[in-house]
Amino acid sequence: MADRSAPPEPARGHSAEQASLGEVRRSEVHEPSSKIVHFPESAPLRLDCDQDLAPFSIAYQTYGSLNAEKSNAILICHALTGDQHVANVHPVTGKPGWWETLVGPGKPVDTDRFFVICPNILGGCMGSSGPASINPRTGKPYGLDFPVITIGDMVNAQVRLIDHLGIPELFSVIGGSMGGMQVLQWAARQKDRVRTAIPIATSPWHSAQNIAFHEVGRQAVMADPDWREGKYLEAVTRPARGLAVARMAAHITYLSEKALQDKFGRGLQDRSARSFSFDADFQVESYLRHQGSTFVDRFDANSYLYITRAMDYFDLAAEHGGKLANAFGGTRTQFCIVSFTSDWLYPTRDSKDIVKALNAVAANVSFVEIESDKGHDAFLLEEPEFFDTIRGFINAAALKHGIDRKGGVG
Amino acid sequence: MADRSAPPEPARGHSAEQASLGEVRRSEVHEPSSKIVHFPESAPLRLDCDQDLAPFSIAYQTYGSLNAEKSNAILICHALTGDQHVANVHPVTGKPGWWETLVGPGKPVDTDRFFVICPNILGGCMGSSGPASINPRTGKPYGLDFPVITIGDMVNAQVRLIDHLGIPELFSVIGGSMGGMQVLQWAARQKDRVRTAIPIATSPWHSAQNIAFHEVGRQAVMADPDWREGKYLEAVTRPARGLAVARMAAHITYLSEKALQDKFGRGLQDRSARSFSFDADFQVESYLRHQGSTFVDRFDANSYLYITRAMDYFDLAAEHGGKLANAFGGTRTQFCIVSFTSDWLYPTRDSKDIVKALNAVAANVSFVEIESDKGHDAFLLEEPEFFDTIRGFINAAALKHGIDRKGGVG
Repeated sequence: MADRSAPPEPARGHSAEQASLGEVRRSEVHEPSSKIVHFPESAPLRLDCDQDLAPFSIAYQTYGSLNAEKSNAILICHALTGDQHVANVHPVTGKPGWWETLVGPGKPVDTDRFFVICPNILGGCMGSSGPASINPRTGKPYGLDFPVITIGDMVNAQVRLIDHLGIPELFSVIGGSMGGMQVLQWAARQKDRVRTAIPIATSPWHSAQNIAFHEVGRQAVMADPDWREGKYLEAVTRPARGLAVARMAAHITYLSEKALQDKFGRGLQDRSARSFSFDADFQVESYLRHQGSTFVDRFDANSYLYITRAMDYFDLAAEHGGKLANAFGGTRTQFCIVSFTSDWLYPTRDSKDIVKALNAVAANVSFVEIESDKGHDAFLLEEPEFFDTIRGFINAAALKHGIDRKGGVG
Repeated sequence: MADRSAPPEPARGHSAEQASLGEVRRSEVHEPSSKIVHFPESAPLRLDCDQDLAPFSIAYQTYGSLNAEKSNAILICHALTGDQHVANVHPVTGKPGWWETLVGPGKPVDTDRFFVICPNILGGCMGSSGPASINPRTGKPYGLDFPVITIGDMVNAQVRLIDHLGIPELFSVIGGSMGGMQVLQWAARQKDRVRTAIPIATSPWHSAQNIAFHEVGRQAVMADPDWREGKYLEAVTRPARGLAVARMAAHITYLSEKALQDKFGRGLQDRSARSFSFDADFQVESYLRHQGSTFVDRFDANSYLYITRAMDYFDLAAEHGGKLANAFGGTRTQFCIVSFTSDWLYPTRDSKDIVKALNAVAANVSFVEIESDKGHDAFLLEEPEFFDTIRGFINAAALKHGIDRKGGVG
């Protein structure tokens, strides 16, 4: 997903300020500015690749308070480049939390009422175990020795966190994009623990085109000699240029063609005529370069490889005998599926496939397609109709489940 | 545009065979396997950047014979990664010509009837002057000292070729994608020399999204340390990994989402289960890697930078006071505009903008949108309705202009 604020400016190479941001990011890997739970060697996480991961850690952020009945917990699942800092200033970038539009006091996901939990995903680089973490076997960063993980593994790690917090059942699991994949996986694997599920701008399987875009990004990272076969942390290098190219390619897919045209068109950047050079003549070039160069300061390149791989591997139908409806058989969860008209990364038809599968098992499902020009990133932006949808669904479900305005049981 | 045949196979690094292909390609820069015309120092080409280019060369291929009246010449303009080898075996790859589907004896563009000319574009790497050519001032390859060119410059160089061949008027100018941009530029700049014009799957201006994809490709090339600020030929290196990434990203845009899904879906490559690694598990990954690695053997990285830049700079309306119709005022050319339903790189609405502008000056224009799932690359593929359109338009125009079945004047 995109950074919310992104002043277009030419950027190549890295300033001292950026280098220092990189240091801050690296320290977040080991000592995150959030809560963290360490699961010991004796409590391994069994992964889909048939390996055990142990010890492992999950960094997480919480907002609001758990009520006495433990019935007002909402789990937020973040997307590819997100993290646990949903609704607080980001410790590396100093920018607002990535979902402050939606989550906070009085917001559609109301932290005065709900206990909101957001873990950094397994494989991430903000404190949860991932390829930048120290491998206890070697004392060095895992790099490519970290096992290849799946969306299911991320969810299983989150289940361990929710167990650790002593929460028997989640009032809601909410997420967009890859966060939505986790929501679907929660609903499929933890039927008794998910009262409501809100998968947004997501898909039950990764399409060939989406795998293709991810593969371009991975090849860009791995083509960078500073990647060093994944051992760049030991070499004190980082594949900044490759990761920036990966981010630029991905970023295009987060916006709609119309959004790019409306925002930039063929506008020139800080000049009145073409330069007849390879400078960033066009605003859209400058914007993309900025997106690429700022991303590398807050994200780990190997995490990018692992997480894109997990998304590519995601196919909820294949996990259930090729039939998506099988994933949801017997569910009692109440679903609210949301898509955006101009999202071409996870188009509405993907959401409709989820709706069809849920209907095939007579699940309780509502589906809303939000009219928006903003593309996939619409779920992160100011979209009043989207906010109204989430607020309405949550309020109705809270009423049904007896959670009052203050998060108590009414 | 895509290679027509592309057996999926994993490919990284470069085999001896590929290195030898690279040698063949480099020799094509200086001594192409086609006709070539050298314009001397005394006959410079004035470029849009206000520089003169001299001397310069244009390599070109011809098929069929010019009739006595010189009225049966058809100019084919190639796309970004095409070249002059339209309808003969390619001297580097050994594959069929890139438009043998359309051009040849008895084909819609019938070489028994027409004298077909295809020049390698200015900025290319198959014999026409470009960044891989020797700079006569230094005796070394131009690299980034080659001037940044435009679609207009490419067309002006082609005009010089057509003058050299002694052809007063072209029966038709035909091209797809960037070739279509050249067709439009010919029609705008050479109104008295273009009887019919067939711009296919193209646009009168490059969109923000298309500039963005090109910028990703350029950044991928320039991020490769082997690019060496454009001086890789002197250093006897080549930015193969960067160029491969650029090609992979671009390649996705040449296909439709449906084409990728139908062709590959989530099919695995040479395995029955996920490898839990970063190998090319999926067919679509393997296919893209193959596209990337084979491309670098037949194409020059700097040419890729220059040509994508020329496309980004293309804005036929801006060249005419911001009004596209002005480009065509007073035209007597007969136009046939073709788009494809699933082309998201140059969608039908871009072709409709051309049609509207032509109608605004009461030009003779027909417009056909071809139903196809194949995306932008449809113009290179077997599309019977497309072939019928081109055949019908050309036959009717030939009848009108008195060119008989054998290319004589009836």
